[in-house]
Amino acid sequence: MSDKQENIVWHESTITKQERRKQNGHQSFILWFTGLSASGKSTVANALASSLFEQGKQVYVLDGDNVRHGLNKDLGFKEEDRKENIRRIGEVSKLFVDSGQIVLTAFISPYRKDRDLVRSLVGPEEFIEVYVHCSLEECEKRDPKGLYKKARNHEIPSFTGISAPYEEPKDPEMVLDTEKYSIKQCVESLLTELKQKQLI
Amino acid sequence: MSDKQENIVWHESTITKQERRKQNGHQSFILWFTGLSASGKSTVANALASSLFEQGKQVYVLDGDNVRHGLNKDLGFKEEDRKENIRRIGEVSKLFVDSGQIVLTAFISPYRKDRDLVRSLVGPEEFIEVYVHCSLEECEKRDPKGLYKKARNHEIPSFTGISAPYEEPKDPEMVLDTEKYSIKQCVESLLTELKQKQLI
Repeated sequence: MSDKQENIVWHESTITKQERRKQNGHQSFILWFTGLSASGKSTVANALASSLFEQGKQVYVLDGDNVRHGLNKDLGFKEEDRKENIRRIGEVSKLFVDSGQIVLTAFISPYRKDRDLVRSLVGPEEFIEVYVHCSLEECEKRDPKGLYKKARNHEIPSFTGISAPYEEPKDPEMVLDTEKYSIKQCVESLLTELKQKQLI
Repeated sequence: MSDKQENIVWHESTITKQERRKQNGHQSFILWFTGLSASGKSTVANALASSLFEQGKQVYVLDGDNVRHGLNKDLGFKEEDRKENIRRIGEVSKLFVDSGQIVLTAFISPYRKDRDLVRSLVGPEEFIEVYVHCSLEECEKRDPKGLYKKARNHEIPSFTGISAPYEEPKDPEMVLDTEKYSIKQCVESLLTELKQKQLI
């Protein structure tokens, strides 16, 4: 009987975000990388993640590779789907933040209102918008996956920068210029900023 | 120019799951708790998570509280929605496993094929199905949220065990009987099993 009693009166003891952060020795937050295709979002995010991981921090990158073929494989590229794509990524990021991790997201996320929706999901100190700036000309020159070429040939509809809009962040926490600066310089600048904000 | 060159030749260095596990000092996997409403899934999962956290492990619980009002707030309770609910939880769990965490999920997940879908998403050693067994009579007696009462009064349609089916796991990795054993005993039995499997 006492066993059953225990089941009934047992109080849920969930681990708090603050306890997780204390144990990990750093804050948990979202670094939201936004920018054109081929601007360098994923490259910079992964390079920063490697650096943070080497410092023993809990860090994870969400990008097309692990999200588009999994969680969001039911979504296409029309506006409503792009919106739902970003919403889900935002909600998953929130779970990672709650679990004590630093989460880096690398998605074009072209619409301002979608990025602002994610911002509204978490605390003000938990969302850092990083605008990965690179001119369309330079992105098109890089074109590592040949996507711009296909978009110009009308083989891809609604391609950001060509046939779909990209709404620049109005007041991002950080701007990286990957035309002027190397990946290494961008990572160093991010690390400096995160230390100044006492997030790591 | 050399900066631009670096952008072009830079190779993505993503952190592997194995590197994360090594740094955390434990395996990462899904403990999938399934069972009737009020069987004790969430309570046992949270108690186990607290114990693992105190041991310094990276662990996170996904349950109705953090998923239904966030990621899956667009979903209802009809069969297709329940299926999509479980699919998304499975995909998110996979991301957590990839990030090196132990993820505990506490959802009724009444359909065998939905649980098997999640099982198929990850490696064979990464999915541990835990059947939280408790008779319908006992669950109905506990009824902490008054849901069974509402279901009996037809105020809730499609309620598992009353007006919707629960398909028992055929070959779960573990079975917990929360009618016979206390929460503490269930947690100890889980810890023993995880150690035997060399997962923690």
